[in-house]
Amino acid sequence: MKKLQLASLNSQNERTIVKVGDVEIGNELALIAGPCSVETEEQMIDTAIKAKAAGANMLRGGAFKPRTSPYDFQGLGLKGLKYLEKAKQASGLPIVTEVIDPRDVCWVSEYADVLQIGARNMQNFSLLKEVGKVNKPVLLKRGMYSTLSEWLNCAEYILAEGNPNVILCERGIRTFETYTRNTLDLSMVPAVKEITHLPIIVDPSHGTGRKSLIAPMCNASVAAGADGLIVEVHNNPCEALCDKDQALTPEEFEVIAKDVSRVYALMKEIAK
Amino acid sequence: MKKLQLASLNSQNERTIVKVGDVEIGNELALIAGPCSVETEEQMIDTAIKAKAAGANMLRGGAFKPRTSPYDFQGLGLKGLKYLEKAKQASGLPIVTEVIDPRDVCWVSEYADVLQIGARNMQNFSLLKEVGKVNKPVLLKRGMYSTLSEWLNCAEYILAEGNPNVILCERGIRTFETYTRNTLDLSMVPAVKEITHLPIIVDPSHGTGRKSLIAPMCNASVAAGADGLIVEVHNNPCEALCDKDQALTPEEFEVIAKDVSRVYALMKEIAK
Amino acid sequence: MKKLQLASLNSQNERTIVKVGDVEIGNELALIAGPCSVETEEQMIDTAIKAKAAGANMLRGGAFKPRTSPYDFQGLGLKGLKYLEKAKQASGLPIVTEVIDPRDVCWVSEYADVLQIGARNMQNFSLLKEVGKVNKPVLLKRGMYSTLSEWLNCAEYILAEGNPNVILCERGIRTFETYTRNTLDLSMVPAVKEITHLPIIVDPSHGTGRKSLIAPMCNASVAAGADGLIVEVHNNPCEALCDKDQALTPEEFEVIAKDVSRVYALMKEIAK
Amino acid sequence: MKKLQLASLNSQNERTIVKVGDVEIGNELALIAGPCSVETEEQMIDTAIKAKAAGANMLRGGAFKPRTSPYDFQGLGLKGLKYLEKAKQASGLPIVTEVIDPRDVCWVSEYADVLQIGARNMQNFSLLKEVGKVNKPVLLKRGMYSTLSEWLNCAEYILAEGNPNVILCERGIRTFETYTRNTLDLSMVPAVKEITHLPIIVDPSHGTGRKSLIAPMCNASVAAGADGLIVEVHNNPCEALCDKDQALTPEEFEVIAKDVSRVYALMKEIAK
Repeated sequence: MKKLQLASLNSQNERTIVKVGDVEIGNELALIAGPCSVETEEQMIDTAIKAKAAGANMLRGGAFKPRTSPYDFQGLGLKGLKYLEKAKQASGLPIVTEVIDPRDVCWVSEYADVLQIGARNMQNFSLLKEVGKVNKPVLLKRGMYSTLSEWLNCAEYILAEGNPNVILCERGIRTFETYTRNTLDLSMVPAVKEITHLPIIVDPSHGTGRKSLIAPMCNASVAAGADGLIVEVHNNPCEALCDKDQALTPEEFEVIAKDVSRVYALMKEIAK
Repeated sequence: MKKLQLASLNSQNERTIVKVGDVEIGNELALIAGPCSVETEEQMIDTAIKAKAAGANMLRGGAFKPRTSPYDFQGLGLKGLKYLEKAKQASGLPIVTEVIDPRDVCWVSEYADVLQIGARNMQNFSLLKEVGKVNKPVLLKRGMYSTLSEWLNCAEYILAEGNPNVILCERGIRTFETYTRNTLDLSMVPAVKEITHLPIIVDPSHGTGRKSLIAPMCNASVAAGADGLIVEVHNNPCEALCDKDQALTPEEFEVIAKDVSRVYALMKEIAK
Repeated sequence: MKKLQLASLNSQNERTIVKVGDVEIGNELALIAGPCSVETEEQMIDTAIKAKAAGANMLRGGAFKPRTSPYDFQGLGLKGLKYLEKAKQASGLPIVTEVIDPRDVCWVSEYADVLQIGARNMQNFSLLKEVGKVNKPVLLKRGMYSTLSEWLNCAEYILAEGNPNVILCERGIRTFETYTRNTLDLSMVPAVKEITHLPIIVDPSHGTGRKSLIAPMCNASVAAGADGLIVEVHNNPCEALCDKDQALTPEEFEVIAKDVSRVYALMKEIAK
Repeated sequence: MKKLQLASLNSQNERTIVKVGDVEIGNELALIAGPCSVETEEQMIDTAIKAKAAGANMLRGGAFKPRTSPYDFQGLGLKGLKYLEKAKQASGLPIVTEVIDPRDVCWVSEYADVLQIGARNMQNFSLLKEVGKVNKPVLLKRGMYSTLSEWLNCAEYILAEGNPNVILCERGIRTFETYTRNTLDLSMVPAVKEITHLPIIVDPSHGTGRKSLIAPMCNASVAAGADGLIVEVHNNPCEALCDKDQALTPEEFEVIAKDVSRVYALMKEIAK
């Protein structure tokens, strides 16, 4: 493990609590729901309202999409951010959205409540330094090829620039297994907790790539000690522009939100 | 996925319940505890009595140890099985023990209540066929390099020989991550359940290789839907001949057993 | 690296030369050709005669096939060995064939000139001990999940039983890449040579799983220092019962055999 | 394989030849040598002159170093580029140097003859688009977690912006094997050639991380069909600021350069 300084559990007396709107990540369960990509204003507003009613306390949605092929849909950009803003106004949910270019960090921060660094950009050090300079919490996804040590050192890059509000996100690593899209590595949840003071959430949608596995892996994540979940929810999954096989309906998400809250409550009790 | 027949969920109306002594794996939580390897009579009897008191309902212990080097301790063989027998008499716990050679299956079955196929032997098809012919449940560990499809087809090898009592065991796969000994792949728990009717348990001791991660991963396994756990417990971990970094004391195991029972109870309630 | 004794380069003054019929593996290029599985007498005799004419100096063919599914073709067994015997008589080529059960080692040795341990059985320690007791060279394939250290320790198991004639075979490891069937790890060729005194050959047929990649990877293997190649050649690839996508015709193999011999000659010159 | 357009072999009649100074990559063997990072003016000039004398036809050296920890040496930046310029003047060798931030592409291009995209930035799409807009060849390293399909689509990103001069570079992928730093995947050399018209070189220094393995893997790379090699050479490896275990002396490189030239010549003859 490359030596950590600011991210290390030893560097401060208490675990970091990241406040986003009313939500205190680390103190209460963060439930981030929303579509993979922002598509239309109606989609975002409708999904946001339904996600909120179903139990979400934050809204996700990508305006910039890093895609394997240059010919795939790359996101709506600024227009997408404006739809997110409207969805926030309609639902009251704070916004989590990805930024992929260091030149965009400043102005995207005006729309985002949390800046997401995606798995492909985990070691985009220029980008990490930029998000380290702004006054917004950062959701740092683990690279799909990344060791725990490398991941935590990327958090260190952000902290070292002066931004203390980093939330880690386990989203699965690349292995030989093909039944799941990635291999969700839940051991990282307690591992992160024993090394750092930062909160960690889990993304079972990308981690498994299969709708049927999301509910049990949400329960497992919270039982492992996760501080929250980020889940793909779409008001009309069949028409989603990307990741339609893993997007849940708001109704499906509602069941999950109820169940994980019970698991979270039990874990709090056990921890006493 | 290579086509399954007997292991497929579609092949029978109900999920398989494997009875071992009084325990109905699939209906109640299986808690298998014990040392990596059988070392002495005292060690086994003492560990068994304490594991039982701590909440275990089955005893594990290896008399044959597949080891990387030919010069490492290879297990006590028949003598080890006799110690297991005494531990069973003293504690009442049924015995789970590994068999590694097709020529040994017949006589090892006289001591074992469950025959374990280790990760390295998952695709030892001669061995699978032999354990398929005896009248003892088989605990089939996933190979550390094995896809879900390959693993389930190994269960099919056993079922095809006439033995319906197969228990699957996720124990971690080999990846690039080095913080943990293996990468425990908990998505396999619900994946196994949606494809087959067989029960599945989890081995967080080998799956993580770190004492500190075992408790949270036990909770996570059960929350993901696992039917049981197999955990390394030693009456004196400091003197364990192998895997001492991951062996728990009976006292540590007792706390885990209580907590996972609460998680299991909650999951039963949620499933209603 | 788990400490080696007999396999270690330091354990003897000279590199091991394994003699098989007239071929001195380690001194001259071993070219082992033949089908994945023995299917018919005609197939074997015809392939053997053509492979010999094309440049092969040893014949491969599987009578026992470890297969993922119990319902797939498992090989002809004894009948297959008898066909191999006839092919040997017709062509003069010594026979390389796999053994998968410790109970079969003794009698299979009567037909085989080299006993092959397949990738799935690399850590089948009972089998390793049995082939360590017979007076036949052993071709030890690397497990698809196996580190160099584990692989060489399996050679140590065989040597420790008294059989000094072990030939290592790199055949690709399992990774996330899907374009090739496995990832052929040619760095292992010089790595094996710097650690042990044993000869090493390469299997680019299983290593790549693609006909079009076999010729360049044969050249690369020999340029990396390999002592030989094992290549799937079938007298009628379209009708092969397994691995038809990677089987070469004798004509295709002939071109490869010529080219690699030139590369081998150049490497000998460079090494002077 | 995600559908390629401009990178596809079918998109043009002839293989792409990338001209860098006098070197025609694709027509003659590219031998790129130099240190991991630019450290001092003397180091660069001395290494460049010696590398040229030893057979190199291009010079590498990093002024921007993506490092795991924010507290590790990050490169000299502009000062490093000026040292590279002096080394170029002294030796006549064209310069290959990495760029890691889209904002730097424009001005770094004034110093670089070839812009390198490192493994960690392979899917930094903003950076790819920027290097696609400048009039300099791009050396695109494969990400250590990247499939062939993803890699070639990154080349497509650059081509789609109008820059036709992309050179691919295999540098090893991340696997479970720990003897080597990465697993050099030489099958990608012929795989790239059968799918695209772009030239491909190999980096055995990062691919193996071991000095002793570099020479054989250079020979193997060229035998597999590679159009060139990029090798770490330092005038004083013991004092190298990074990667000292894999840096060669100019004398060691000279032997390699001679040998690979002979292998290259043989492969040209065989290809006729």
